[in-house]
Amino acid sequence: MPAPHTLDGWYVLHDFRTIRREVWKETDPHTAAAVLRDFGAFVQGELEAQRARLGSFGQFVIAGTKADLLFLYMRPTIGELNDVKARFEATRLADFTERAYSYVSVVELGGYLAKPGVDVEQDEALQLRLKPPVPEMRYVCFYPMNKRRTHPDNWYMLDEDERRKHLMAHGQIGRQFAGKVKQVISGSVGLDDWEWGVTLYADDPIHFKKLIYEMRFDESSARFAEFGPFYVGEQVDAEGLTKWMMTLHG
Amino acid sequence: MPAPHTLDGWYVLHDFRTIRREVWKETDPHTAAAVLRDFGAFVQGELEAQRARLGSFGQFVIAGTKADLLFLYMRPTIGELNDVKARFEATRLADFTERAYSYVSVVELGGYLAKPGVDVEQDEALQLRLKPPVPEMRYVCFYPMNKRRTHPDNWYMLDEDERRKHLMAHGQIGRQFAGKVKQVISGSVGLDDWEWGVTLYADDPIHFKKLIYEMRFDESSARFAEFGPFYVGEQVDAEGLTKWMMTLHG
Amino acid sequence: MPAPHTLDGWYVLHDFRTIRREVWKETDPHTAAAVLRDFGAFVQGELEAQRARLGSFGQFVIAGTKADLLFLYMRPTIGELNDVKARFEATRLADFTERAYSYVSVVELGGYLAKPGVDVEQDEALQLRLKPPVPEMRYVCFYPMNKRRTHPDNWYMLDEDERRKHLMAHGQIGRQFAGKVKQVISGSVGLDDWEWGVTLYADDPIHFKKLIYEMRFDESSARFAEFGPFYVGEQVDAEGLTKWMMTLHG
Amino acid sequence: MPAPHTLDGWYVLHDFRTIRREVWKETDPHTAAAVLRDFGAFVQGELEAQRARLGSFGQFVIAGTKADLLFLYMRPTIGELNDVKARFEATRLADFTERAYSYVSVVELGGYLAKPGVDVEQDEALQLRLKPPVPEMRYVCFYPMNKRRTHPDNWYMLDEDERRKHLMAHGQIGRQFAGKVKQVISGSVGLDDWEWGVTLYADDPIHFKKLIYEMRFDESSARFAEFGPFYVGEQVDAEGLTKWMMTLHG
Amino acid sequence: MPAPHTLDGWYVLHDFRTIRREVWKETDPHTAAAVLRDFGAFVQGELEAQRARLGSFGQFVIAGTKADLLFLYMRPTIGELNDVKARFEATRLADFTERAYSYVSVVELGGYLAKPGVDVEQDEALQLRLKPPVPEMRYVCFYPMNKRRTHPDNWYMLDEDERRKHLMAHGQIGRQFAGKVKQVISGSVGLDDWEWGVTLYADDPIHFKKLIYEMRFDESSARFAEFGPFYVGEQVDAEGLTKWMMTLHG
Repeated sequence: MPAPHTLDGWYVLHDFRTIRREVWKETDPHTAAAVLRDFGAFVQGELEAQRARLGSFGQFVIAGTKADLLFLYMRPTIGELNDVKARFEATRLADFTERAYSYVSVVELGGYLAKPGVDVEQDEALQLRLKPPVPEMRYVCFYPMNKRRTHPDNWYMLDEDERRKHLMAHGQIGRQFAGKVKQVISGSVGLDDWEWGVTLYADDPIHFKKLIYEMRFDESSARFAEFGPFYVGEQVDAEGLTKWMMTLHG
Repeated sequence: MPAPHTLDGWYVLHDFRTIRREVWKETDPHTAAAVLRDFGAFVQGELEAQRARLGSFGQFVIAGTKADLLFLYMRPTIGELNDVKARFEATRLADFTERAYSYVSVVELGGYLAKPGVDVEQDEALQLRLKPPVPEMRYVCFYPMNKRRTHPDNWYMLDEDERRKHLMAHGQIGRQFAGKVKQVISGSVGLDDWEWGVTLYADDPIHFKKLIYEMRFDESSARFAEFGPFYVGEQVDAEGLTKWMMTLHG
Repeated sequence: MPAPHTLDGWYVLHDFRTIRREVWKETDPHTAAAVLRDFGAFVQGELEAQRARLGSFGQFVIAGTKADLLFLYMRPTIGELNDVKARFEATRLADFTERAYSYVSVVELGGYLAKPGVDVEQDEALQLRLKPPVPEMRYVCFYPMNKRRTHPDNWYMLDEDERRKHLMAHGQIGRQFAGKVKQVISGSVGLDDWEWGVTLYADDPIHFKKLIYEMRFDESSARFAEFGPFYVGEQVDAEGLTKWMMTLHG
Repeated sequence: MPAPHTLDGWYVLHDFRTIRREVWKETDPHTAAAVLRDFGAFVQGELEAQRARLGSFGQFVIAGTKADLLFLYMRPTIGELNDVKARFEATRLADFTERAYSYVSVVELGGYLAKPGVDVEQDEALQLRLKPPVPEMRYVCFYPMNKRRTHPDNWYMLDEDERRKHLMAHGQIGRQFAGKVKQVISGSVGLDDWEWGVTLYADDPIHFKKLIYEMRFDESSARFAEFGPFYVGEQVDAEGLTKWMMTLHG
Repeated sequence: MPAPHTLDGWYVLHDFRTIRREVWKETDPHTAAAVLRDFGAFVQGELEAQRARLGSFGQFVIAGTKADLLFLYMRPTIGELNDVKARFEATRLADFTERAYSYVSVVELGGYLAKPGVDVEQDEALQLRLKPPVPEMRYVCFYPMNKRRTHPDNWYMLDEDERRKHLMAHGQIGRQFAGKVKQVISGSVGLDDWEWGVTLYADDPIHFKKLIYEMRFDESSARFAEFGPFYVGEQVDAEGLTKWMMTLHG
């Protein structure tokens, strides 16, 4: 049975970090401010790359203590993602962080979106979805997931019609949240430990809970979805990151 | 199948910490006392926020060595929870702690409680349950849980009547412990790694064991519940925390 | 279906520790001897509490490298267990240990032992079983366990007669080892990550293996038991602990 | 039922490393350059061994934060793999790395390739497949896997014809990617925690995703494959490694 | 159903260690040589104990980075194993190691070997199998395992005849490797986290892979075996250990 055709866009790195709190708090406030100012230049470069449509960038304060910060990058190649990883590590702020979790994937759209006669490379709407900038919404939710492959609920043993039927029902739930939740699916088969990464954006995080809870009663989730860790955070600009880091600094 | 409607209240952070014992014991007693006094100011602020109905706060000494302390916060938004996390880290006491576990969720009530004609926002009883202060009971029990989704015991594939029947039986057990155990359910779908967090309070912790054991024989737990780690602890005020920390200090 | 009635005794803390070997070996022998002498006073206090029937205490050298030492405490309340945890951490010896594993539970007897007309609080034999001192046997074995709740082997969905039949067969195996193995069952539903802790004592540890292997062929274990980590160790008095610690010191 | 006959070639060590970033960044640039120059000599030796057909060698920058670098070695014996592990650790660069993950296996071909009358030891094509140099392709993908052994999808309970039919279908998918993806299968039964390691090479990493996704719908993967962690990275020569390490150095 | 009778010999400790590489490499070569020379005295003592039939000893360099060294000890009692653990830790070499994994078990033979009229204690062949010295073979393979207890493949619910039939088929595979692979089975029910430890020795490690792969198609493995981590290593004498440690030292 052939795999569904997919359209693949930019490669994505979700880089979750924890602040090395004792070390950070020991720096004098002037140094701390300088570290954050320098980091502002890194952020500025990433945002310029995003504006120039060379990549995407977002930064978030994560809730709970599994992580403190999420830096989200997209680039056309894995080589470029490796380069941005090294450039982040080269910043002084990076010295005050530990790696908490990461996820490597590539933005993925259903191949059925490539309608006959459409040149995907020239279709602006598709290009924007394949190379999406980080939207200006206040909250983010990220989790990786698999489709189950254990008897009798084996997604990969369903015939194509059944899978399509499930995905349509699933998609309808997503559409009920149009305008409230923006969703970016990225594929990670062969790239990381789960099959997909799901990144949701919303101005009110209660919509994450309501959307995913609604989906859980949908057969394609109820019977076939396996979920990894969930992270929720608040998007911050340079000023917001500085404010949060200085609050923690005390 | 539509998901059950829920009422959602304050966001909750359970922040479990372990004492960095060698470092703590190396501080001279005067410094240790000053650290705890300073922390008293943080606690005072949290309790004032609770009195002003801006949030909730509780602190607990945890049994065993998985963690030593639990700080429990509630706030109207995740942004505010992130702020309180940073403010806790800014305290001197925080330097003597490591992160042991955390859980992010939002207080959740069954939507059926929103009776027709009732304005939830104006209903004082509902508001108190959605934004609950930490009760003055001596012991706490916390655990996260899922409803199972593996054949043939797939909660999310049950029809609505079956689920309601199960939940009613489950609720009756809870009611047998009315007055002995106070229970706060918070939802965490999309917010953390399990679907719900359960926080129980009691003056005698044997009731935690008896209540949960009773529920385990109930079909909704026996067939459908999956449990994460369990934590049990004793609530302490500023004086109680100081006393325990100074006992450990030696 | 109502849960079986239980009698609950003292709360139990199993506190497994690993020696911080490099730090311990760097102390000069006089200091090392003083640390152990001081710890002897702590042990002395615990043994006096045991003699006064205020609690229980045992110390063990654990085999393998998952842990080096086990300190086992019992107390009437969780608050008192938290206090003894802090007092242990306050000792100088504690600075040379790391936490390897712990388990919180409460001594549990079948409720059928409370025969009609018997005042459990006044029944000396029952009281001794609910508040058991650590026996003077040479070896200890500890493991936590659950009863399985997955179809078709769901312990909590069995009817009461089936469960009783299984437990009787199980108990008969235990009785075959009467005199050779002493067994203390403690319940941990709501207190720690498994449902029960099992602590066995014997003068010859081969009986641990033979007893548990025998039970494994019993249907109540074969179909329904799920086991956590297993620890085996040798009981030591103050002198035995000192000898082992000084051998390691070199 | 006899196990399929296999041809076994060189032993393989996948050695994943994380850079100790704070320590690396603290070295002055001259020292850093010297460390990398010295490491170049180690690499040179490995590449000479590869040219002399005494072993194989490749180095890769890994995406995400599970690891930073992968060093891949092959040797005729496990003793020689142990020697190369020690020689890598002896380099100065090794002091700036931590171990992130490793995998031990042996290159494996289907025994059916040893056709009657063929002397495997003298067959150059087979020898090249059993002792494969690392190809000059830009990207690498590595993951370990098992064949499932749980009812009703137990690979090892299938009869030989069924297994052969599955493997043929599986192989046809691989052949669709001929020229795009080069695949090396190594067996690890008895050598490491999974049954096989799979190492893929491609100039465009999207082929990893497409190949593995295609295979997932194939019954031999859909029903019988269990996967470990996935790693993806970019091959670098001495210059590429130096460039990436100096970018991270800042 | 009674458990199969077993004969139990010496207790076994598999002690896997990782070298603290940065610390080891920082020692000057004279000190490093002295540390290894001193350790030679410990090894000498262990080998003398083995010759005197008071215990067993072997040391191995482990492949991959899960561990670097394995020290294998056998003794008549757990108390003596605890003593040898402390004596190893007291060596200077131990300061350059971290604990990677360990396993506690007891050599186990099928009880059917105790033929009527045979005094096991006086039967030299049985005594040698119950208290086996480490053979002079070049490679070692170790893994722990369980017999599965989940429906429908529950080993402990099989009747005795079925189990015997499975074990006989299993044993025949082992006998095909007679002379190539030497196998020591040790039981660990009640002693460590799995039910058995398997230690294999061979001059050519490909036989580990071939033997275990052959067994995997045998119904007793295919349906009933659950495996823990696998370790493979090369046996070294004092000189071989010194050579490897000095290669790593650089």
